[in-house]
Amino acid sequence: MPRLVPALAPTLALAIALPLAAQTPTGSRWWPSEWGAEDERGAMHRITPAKVLEAARLITEGEIYQLGRTYDAEMPLFGNRHYSLTIPGLPTGGPTGENRILWNDELVSGQIGQVGTQFDGLGHIGTEVDGEYLFYNGFRLSEFGTPYGLERLGVENVGAFFTRGVLLDVAAYKGVDRLAPDYVITVADIEGTLARQGVEIHEGDVVLFRTGHSALWGEDNATYQATNPGPGVTAVKWLIERRIVMTGADTPSVEAVPGEDPNRPFEGHQWLMNRNGIYNLENLDLEALAADGVYEFAFIFAPLKLRGATGSPGNPIAVR
Amino acid sequence: MPRLVPALAPTLALAIALPLAAQTPTGSRWWPSEWGAEDERGAMHRITPAKVLEAARLITEGEIYQLGRTYDAEMPLFGNRHYSLTIPGLPTGGPTGENRILWNDELVSGQIGQVGTQFDGLGHIGTEVDGEYLFYNGFRLSEFGTPYGLERLGVENVGAFFTRGVLLDVAAYKGVDRLAPDYVITVADIEGTLARQGVEIHEGDVVLFRTGHSALWGEDNATYQATNPGPGVTAVKWLIERRIVMTGADTPSVEAVPGEDPNRPFEGHQWLMNRNGIYNLENLDLEALAADGVYEFAFIFAPLKLRGATGSPGNPIAVR
Amino acid sequence: MPRLVPALAPTLALAIALPLAAQTPTGSRWWPSEWGAEDERGAMHRITPAKVLEAARLITEGEIYQLGRTYDAEMPLFGNRHYSLTIPGLPTGGPTGENRILWNDELVSGQIGQVGTQFDGLGHIGTEVDGEYLFYNGFRLSEFGTPYGLERLGVENVGAFFTRGVLLDVAAYKGVDRLAPDYVITVADIEGTLARQGVEIHEGDVVLFRTGHSALWGEDNATYQATNPGPGVTAVKWLIERRIVMTGADTPSVEAVPGEDPNRPFEGHQWLMNRNGIYNLENLDLEALAADGVYEFAFIFAPLKLRGATGSPGNPIAVR
Amino acid sequence: MPRLVPALAPTLALAIALPLAAQTPTGSRWWPSEWGAEDERGAMHRITPAKVLEAARLITEGEIYQLGRTYDAEMPLFGNRHYSLTIPGLPTGGPTGENRILWNDELVSGQIGQVGTQFDGLGHIGTEVDGEYLFYNGFRLSEFGTPYGLERLGVENVGAFFTRGVLLDVAAYKGVDRLAPDYVITVADIEGTLARQGVEIHEGDVVLFRTGHSALWGEDNATYQATNPGPGVTAVKWLIERRIVMTGADTPSVEAVPGEDPNRPFEGHQWLMNRNGIYNLENLDLEALAADGVYEFAFIFAPLKLRGATGSPGNPIAVR
Repeated sequence: MPRLVPALAPTLALAIALPLAAQTPTGSRWWPSEWGAEDERGAMHRITPAKVLEAARLITEGEIYQLGRTYDAEMPLFGNRHYSLTIPGLPTGGPTGENRILWNDELVSGQIGQVGTQFDGLGHIGTEVDGEYLFYNGFRLSEFGTPYGLERLGVENVGAFFTRGVLLDVAAYKGVDRLAPDYVITVADIEGTLARQGVEIHEGDVVLFRTGHSALWGEDNATYQATNPGPGVTAVKWLIERRIVMTGADTPSVEAVPGEDPNRPFEGHQWLMNRNGIYNLENLDLEALAADGVYEFAFIFAPLKLRGATGSPGNPIAVR
Repeated sequence: MPRLVPALAPTLALAIALPLAAQTPTGSRWWPSEWGAEDERGAMHRITPAKVLEAARLITEGEIYQLGRTYDAEMPLFGNRHYSLTIPGLPTGGPTGENRILWNDELVSGQIGQVGTQFDGLGHIGTEVDGEYLFYNGFRLSEFGTPYGLERLGVENVGAFFTRGVLLDVAAYKGVDRLAPDYVITVADIEGTLARQGVEIHEGDVVLFRTGHSALWGEDNATYQATNPGPGVTAVKWLIERRIVMTGADTPSVEAVPGEDPNRPFEGHQWLMNRNGIYNLENLDLEALAADGVYEFAFIFAPLKLRGATGSPGNPIAVR
Repeated sequence: MPRLVPALAPTLALAIALPLAAQTPTGSRWWPSEWGAEDERGAMHRITPAKVLEAARLITEGEIYQLGRTYDAEMPLFGNRHYSLTIPGLPTGGPTGENRILWNDELVSGQIGQVGTQFDGLGHIGTEVDGEYLFYNGFRLSEFGTPYGLERLGVENVGAFFTRGVLLDVAAYKGVDRLAPDYVITVADIEGTLARQGVEIHEGDVVLFRTGHSALWGEDNATYQATNPGPGVTAVKWLIERRIVMTGADTPSVEAVPGEDPNRPFEGHQWLMNRNGIYNLENLDLEALAADGVYEFAFIFAPLKLRGATGSPGNPIAVR
Repeated sequence: MPRLVPALAPTLALAIALPLAAQTPTGSRWWPSEWGAEDERGAMHRITPAKVLEAARLITEGEIYQLGRTYDAEMPLFGNRHYSLTIPGLPTGGPTGENRILWNDELVSGQIGQVGTQFDGLGHIGTEVDGEYLFYNGFRLSEFGTPYGLERLGVENVGAFFTRGVLLDVAAYKGVDRLAPDYVITVADIEGTLARQGVEIHEGDVVLFRTGHSALWGEDNATYQATNPGPGVTAVKWLIERRIVMTGADTPSVEAVPGEDPNRPFEGHQWLMNRNGIYNLENLDLEALAADGVYEFAFIFAPLKLRGATGSPGNPIAVR
């Protein structure tokens, strides 16, 4: 069973009832980090050596699953983002020397931390409060943002994920190939899926939702990107109480879009990253894990240390 | 002891003695892959489930070391490459909705697979032979190269490294803080370092050289980038016989530059990637591993699946 | 009447009759430039001081027409090209100083010389002959091309257009709003249009075709980009004999696509730039000129001096 | 003689005497545009048909001078800006068809409107007043700025310069090859230079300062970029009273840096663009004009219509 989180739970209850300016605990400007006023790593602190060893013990078969998607110019993209890869010169250098060596490079342009398989760092999501833009731990964008990168909360601070991963195959639980694009996953769905799979969520886990939505990837990009099934804000809060380190899914946003309240878009992102320092991983390929019925595994991912970046591309792996 | 490699060893002996056009085994156009004429993954085939389990067994402390460097505009760079990161808008989106959410993205431009900590895939290095540009397994650049990415040997084919890693702290073996920028590491140096550390190289390992050269990173970029210590081509061939999967180092090129023969620049790259399908990982930070005397560990790295790319940025990790 | 071009005309007649390898005059490797074996500017030599003065005399009203289109992410694009503009930071700098100054920059990524209104320089188009890639004046790409820009024929060599411009409103001549997307403009069409408009083509002119095709810009980008009306290769050769300096149009390619022979795509580009050093200007907005019946004018355009580039963006103007 | 500007002159006198918040005329939030509350083009309105004809009459020799510099990776750059040009593929397309056509494109990344020869539009410079970022005509950045371009004051609104240009060869007037890098040009210097050259400044002119500073370009980029000679804020205001449309120079900033008051950096930019809608053009090459003693000429430049951009690259020309 996940441990109870007495310190956080009252905060959550309070937050739902009160207007925005009054939502923070005990009148503070913003949700304080449990890891101190200067903390920039959030839930990564839960990946302790003991947690690493818990994950390592799940490696019994020696089988690796790549969860990252291939980046190319045909990916579905959010808004005005772009992705371009070219090979200057072909070859880019040489042939030279008596050994006639030659080489190719690639030139990439794009919102590389926020296209394709993408990791949301703590500098990605904030909330406007009384005209200020507040991020994790109450850091103000006006104080740490620069046009050439963030001076706080950049992904170079995150470190590496080597922890227990849990797959929630909600599509299988619901008996469908693919959840409807606007389906909101409930706490009951999560509990039902866990029971069906015979697994539990532990503190420090990465929790990945398989919805089947990724069947649209490359087939119907417009529908893939427009809305997506996923946990509603209620389920997100339930996950936060389990003290996980990251959510992930085979969808563009992980949380349901438009979700429980269309007037509060992407609010799960605020509960996760902005208030609780919990990360988020989007556009995964979870098909092989699901096909093999792999529901717990070592989850491994080290974001690129892009100084001052809000996110990172990646090819996370599951190992069992 | 590493297994002998009877099939390859005669080839190597032959190659040293004969002119280029005659170097390939048994008169073939290029070194044939031992994994078949269509193979694009090279030495990755050595990372079997058994090898994954060998690596996993090295995880006894639950401690993670990040080996990747931070990417920023102040990195030393090869030639005309560039790296730029900006935050459009600050914030890039919002605030919007009743929940007043806002977000930042980052826009990156650069030779992202060939700056900073960088992984050399099999589409990076080739050799001109009789006017043709030949890559791993004899694939011709004229047949698989396009301006928008490689149609063969792209890094999306590589898969993930989860294997045994070995650190060779040659600087410590030689009793210096930093090897001279033109020092050529010999087979005797490797054997001496292994003996001092009490470890062996196994088939399927990643072998990382610590030279101390990285003390120059960010301190004297010009010297860091101009030349670097590392294994000479003789030592590279010795490593190839051990059937490893990747070399790496705390230097820009891993192999010594200018190396044993300045008229044959980067020839180790040709022996590794081009002829034998063995990968290469540059600009690592190996200081913490060396300081803790960690000489064998689980090495984990999954290149970004950038379609058609020649390399990948990364933040490889060592776990013990 | 345009002056006769005795030196070129036999070449053209010969070229039509013979196979490719034999097409060049008098057995030379490639069409020699009439401006010498080292020339990199082609037809720009026709813009003499006398020609500038001829153009200046057409300025009698003081009215300026901008012929360039607006660049944005919604433009129709050829192939895999992209265009991205972002504002880092917003503002990018400041506020600073007692004067509280602040500033914005823009970051642009894209094939900037070959998107939107675009000027084709002499490094843009070449022809493969016996395995060599030959450009204007017989320069070989293998000798002047580098991954970081062309060492010959870059647009920085072109100089500035200040010359007489002629608009051919072929759509009006044919009595249609828009020519069919596959319409091939003939020599008779050009002569009929000139007669209707009461103007002639002079040596050193820029000749702009109005087809009405640009009504599709931003309305039906797919159709706009797929094919376009324009002069066929026969009409292109007729224009070359008039010793003009540039063709232009309100279409993506100026010359008809697919044109007279679909097995010989964009062959007009070869006749213009590659063989005769005559430039080409695409995706113009000619509506205001046509609406006002302005058929001759001073045409002014100075390509960006992008070192080693094949083309240039621009906002050419017509002044009368 | 320039016309008197009764409406502006009292404003200027007032502005010097009072603190910032009180500087605007008659208590308005910001300097009102004389062209109406919705105007986005500023001083371009002074380029009337009559002004175009005045300029055209200066074309008596048919000689063209290119004033733009070549863009390359070796340019001096401000702050963190970058410039990259590569050729994907080499060639980028082909050879294809029976005609064996092939082509090259270029891929450019950089702050293209703010590197090298660069034109400052009205969205480039603003001032913080009471926490608001105010631009030309009082437009608030919070209302027109977006991460993907400005919705007001973008350079696509500017139009084309075809007007009288005046060169002020201040270096020659002072009898030096190059003004000291911190020299502040005074009103007396301008008047002395005009008298020596026998020319006057007219309403609607572009006024270009030759300082000789550009001898440092590519020779000593650090000194070139660090500070530069130019008109001080007093001379800038004097020019504004002459109702010109643009200042320009052979320096990075046109106005003197650090100028008359180092605590008020780039304040001339605020007086020009931000308050009076007058443009600015940097990093010109004025050597040929000066060598030939060409002090008045037709000045022609059409900024690229980059939607929402703050500036534009360019190759302005002078024609006489």
